Amino acid sequence: MVSVTFEPVGKKVEDEPDTILEIARRNGVLIRSDCGGKGVCGKCKVVVVDYRGSLSDITDHERKHLIEEEISKGYRLACQARVEEGRATIFIPPESRLERRKVAGLTIEKEVELNPAVRKVYAEIQPPSIEDQLPDYDRLTRALGDFSLDLETLSEMPKLLREAEWRVTATFWNGRLIDLEKGDVSDRCYGVAVDVGSSKIICHLVDLKSGETIATGYSDNPQVAYGEDIVSRITYASKSAENRKRLQTVVVETVNQIIAELCNESGVDLRHVYEVMIVGNSVMHHLFFGIEPRFIGVSPFTPAVRRGVSFPAEDVGLRINRKGYVSSLPLVAGFVGADAVANIAITGIHKAEEISMVIDIGTNTEIVIGNREKLGVCSAPSGPAFEGAHITFGMKAISGAIDSVRIERDEVIYTTIDNAKAKGLCGTGLIDLIAELYRNGIINRNGKFVKDHSRIIVDGVPKFVVAKAEETEFGKPITVSEKDINELLMAKGAIKSGWMILSERLGIEPDKIERIYLAGSFGRHINVENAKVIGLLPDIPSEKITFAGDTAVGGAKMALKSVRVRDEMEDVVSRLNYVELSVEKNFYSVFVRAIPI
Amino acid sequence: MVSVTFEPVGKKVEDEPDTILEIARRNGVLIRSDCGGKGVCGKCKVVVVDYRGSLSDITDHERKHLIEEEISKGYRLACQARVEEGRATIFIPPESRLERRKVAGLTIEKEVELNPAVRKVYAEIQPPSIEDQLPDYDRLTRALGDFSLDLETLSEMPKLLREAEWRVTATFWNGRLIDLEKGDVSDRCYGVAVDVGSSKIICHLVDLKSGETIATGYSDNPQVAYGEDIVSRITYASKSAENRKRLQTVVVETVNQIIAELCNESGVDLRHVYEVMIVGNSVMHHLFFGIEPRFIGVSPFTPAVRRGVSFPAEDVGLRINRKGYVSSLPLVAGFVGADAVANIAITGIHKAEEISMVIDIGTNTEIVIGNREKLGVCSAPSGPAFEGAHITFGMKAISGAIDSVRIERDEVIYTTIDNAKAKGLCGTGLIDLIAELYRNGIINRNGKFVKDHSRIIVDGVPKFVVAKAEETEFGKPITVSEKDINELLMAKGAIKSGWMILSERLGIEPDKIERIYLAGSFGRHINVENAKVIGLLPDIPSEKITFAGDTAVGGAKMALKSVRVRDEMEDVVSRLNYVELSVEKNFYSVFVRAIPI
Repeated sequence: MVSVTFEPVGKKVEDEPDTILEIARRNGVLIRSDCGGKGVCGKCKVVVVDYRGSLSDITDHERKHLIEEEISKGYRLACQARVEEGRATIFIPPESRLERRKVAGLTIEKEVELNPAVRKVYAEIQPPSIEDQLPDYDRLTRALGDFSLDLETLSEMPKLLREAEWRVTATFWNGRLIDLEKGDVSDRCYGVAVDVGSSKIICHLVDLKSGETIATGYSDNPQVAYGEDIVSRITYASKSAENRKRLQTVVVETVNQIIAELCNESGVDLRHVYEVMIVGNSVMHHLFFGIEPRFIGVSPFTPAVRRGVSFPAEDVGLRINRKGYVSSLPLVAGFVGADAVANIAITGIHKAEEISMVIDIGTNTEIVIGNREKLGVCSAPSGPAFEGAHITFGMKAISGAIDSVRIERDEVIYTTIDNAKAKGLCGTGLIDLIAELYRNGIINRNGKFVKDHSRIIVDGVPKFVVAKAEETEFGKPITVSEKDINELLMAKGAIKSGWMILSERLGIEPDKIERIYLAGSFGRHINVENAKVIGLLPDIPSEKITFAGDTAVGGAKMALKSVRVRDEMEDVVSRLNYVELSVEKNFYSVFVRAIPI
Repeated sequence: MVSVTFEPVGKKVEDEPDTILEIARRNGVLIRSDCGGKGVCGKCKVVVVDYRGSLSDITDHERKHLIEEEISKGYRLACQARVEEGRATIFIPPESRLERRKVAGLTIEKEVELNPAVRKVYAEIQPPSIEDQLPDYDRLTRALGDFSLDLETLSEMPKLLREAEWRVTATFWNGRLIDLEKGDVSDRCYGVAVDVGSSKIICHLVDLKSGETIATGYSDNPQVAYGEDIVSRITYASKSAENRKRLQTVVVETVNQIIAELCNESGVDLRHVYEVMIVGNSVMHHLFFGIEPRFIGVSPFTPAVRRGVSFPAEDVGLRINRKGYVSSLPLVAGFVGADAVANIAITGIHKAEEISMVIDIGTNTEIVIGNREKLGVCSAPSGPAFEGAHITFGMKAISGAIDSVRIERDEVIYTTIDNAKAKGLCGTGLIDLIAELYRNGIINRNGKFVKDHSRIIVDGVPKFVVAKAEETEFGKPITVSEKDINELLMAKGAIKSGWMILSERLGIEPDKIERIYLAGSFGRHINVENAKVIGLLPDIPSEKITFAGDTAVGGAKMALKSVRVRDEMEDVVSRLNYVELSVEKNFYSVFVRAIPI
């Protein structure tokens, strides 16, 4: 056994000898690790502050990612350094921490007629008599309509009915009795909508009697400790049933924790939370439910299930009412998940006359185009560049990220999240930067530097200095190279080919799209004009581009409030025109043309 | 801790200090105890062969039931004697053992068109391709029709389908996928019908593809250790949830054991047993499912449920296929259970033109009268006299019981079960004895001795010697007193009032009954002529009286084989005329007139 103390969280743990990353994972300490612990991303830098015992030697991977000065200060890669014996104190520097990020909030809320799967009714039942010996269960169905129930509820029913003097509140989920309480508590009826994002988890606690959202909360998805991207998580989960279970447990426990906090702050008893409605991409969906995700990751990318499902909440380990249920909206395909379906629900594009596009930018960018007549969807393999990956100073939209950029001659004017000292560039900042570099003639359409500029330095290759050394948190300049720009233009090209091919297949000219909804938190902070300049979005009037916000959780909430919405979405999915870009013959030629600005 | 060795079973146990009966119960050693351990029946005699330590003193209850000679030999009542410390060896004499009894076997089998809840089909599924990305679940429903499933089955489905190369056997229970196996095993499909009697449990293993019964087995109901009669078991179960659970566990484990043996001898894998169909009286039904039975025991005698139910077999602890189900036929009322419904199913009286009566004699005697036009049922409170209780030398129909009697002048000719030395009189022997005593003018219609007879001895009160001391196992004569005869006439009176009142309510003269079915093992050995002489049965031609045998398990088997039979029985129950004798105004006057021979 070894003893490790993690700072600044101040968590001390005893564990088997292992890498710092594995010990952290096993004990719920979150360390950033984009590559999932393979030693290739260099994002899991930690500082060994103190140790008595034995640590493994510096590896080649570490020498690649750490400069001499860092090594001398005790920096290590958490995925490489093993605590072999004794005790160690490990400091996790800010850049390696998994922090809470900005959550967009929901900017559109759709009114839905309340028709939840959960029905809670108070009843005063006629007690049995020698003239009316009808058994308890049949007596309840006579008063409340027919229903099914589980054995435990039936077993305890006789005693409960008599103790309650036949005045009870019955809770039904889709015609099944799931709870029976003494007296009238029919007004305490809640559900939770959850967006299980690959990087963050958003929960909304909803009063199912009034339809009101009474509390919201979110957290990072702790699965990032097992791989930043979806593919590493599929790889991890596919290794063993235990791994799959572990990925499920960490995310379910996070949801449990958020729900418990929301209930606590709203004075809601967990027993009165009856249903959780989940949306997420197909892999997140499978991992949440504990379903084998392996075959989503390999051709032909087949999920286990498409339709919306419902299971006892207990079966996934959710702690709500013991007999409560967890449901999901349907998926579309391996790379178009329930989150995309939720986006359709909340934007209502399947019911509108005008032709709209919903775009949810991420590692896979889901694009829906159409109206009430025809509707198509595809998933563009945009990669993680807009989330900061593969970009020298790329980072997520967390504290210290440069999130907007303007270039005025030699000056670069930028803002950072939380007004913190600059740490790097997040997606919206990168879009602005490229548009501004192009607008100022510093780069050409192919992203190559074409003009001398006081901000360009040559450090092996030419680099544009966005923030000077003295302005940044770590005292080194934040720069972009042509390689960085190229990564971004490739990602943009993938997205653009997505909406180009999809509109072509639907017979719609991209400039005939009448409205664009930007879904997800990324959309909120995007500079629309710049996005159009670089060709990320079709060139339509900016006022027709709506920031839709956390559409996924919004759509989940609609489904939570109404079983009719669920039926409607099953119907939408069944008639949705899914375009699999990987088999489109002209994908490559369209993509190549879509890369330049 | 004390140490107790039970002989002749040779079981040695370590346990907390307690009565011998309680220690035996907790450790699965069966000792007869008709009163449930209250010290009043005297049936739990055991011999303390040896002890080192401390035993409690002889109680007043024991002095009442044990003669001096027995006490000097070490006899004790197991429910009274406590092992306080040290170790003891306890011998359970034959009369205190719970033994296997005669099982009637089923004399009528009804052909039913096979339509079980379980459907097992082999399918070769088209694998997904990039052109046909339909998810696994939806792919199966496309091939096999729509179905629901549990999360675990869905979670493992992707891997299993691919390992099986898309050739699988799917098992459905009422439209729910409960098992998925590689290759074609569609011919291995079984179910079990179970009659949970208050004293014995009968199981039939059925091939659900052919409809054949492939093995049968039975056992004593181990609940007798917690109370011989239903009322003591309700009392025991109502004391705590643990007690209720215990009564459930002992019976479910017995069923598990029988099923495992039947499967073993037939070469059937337990995984291929998908459904268990249970019948039993209402209390046995509730105790089997673990449902609170307390309110069946007190007015207005309300069960928790009437309709037939189905629950996951796992929920009651049955070990068949892990996702298999346990179902029951509907009940009628607190004292008319699913066994009575099974009796209707197998005799088919609800479909016949002739007016029939089904009578199932027991502590509560269920009587059904009617035809396809009208059908009525009642439960007569006959008490346990016909099972040997409250009769000086009464006993159950086990080895050594006198089961038929004829009186020829001074001679009493009798037979015993297994031709063993006489130990006592069982129900059929008692009926014969009374009829013969009456026929020979030894007793009058009221059961009083009216003639001197060489067999009558006076031992405080006059007693008729059935078996002389030298003929019996214990070297003392087997006798009946007027009190014994009166007990039996009272029991008969209760049954007779049952069919008299029921026929009156249906507007049927008892002698217009065209057929009588004697259900249960009791009926098989009854001398019909004698039963008519004492007035137990209506006076109709003997050839119209059919021994129907184990009708309950037969009816359960019909329901197991066909969901249509289940629906039919729900319908029968809903239109069945249930007569609650306890609220019949004329019950007492009819009863008084029904007692004399």
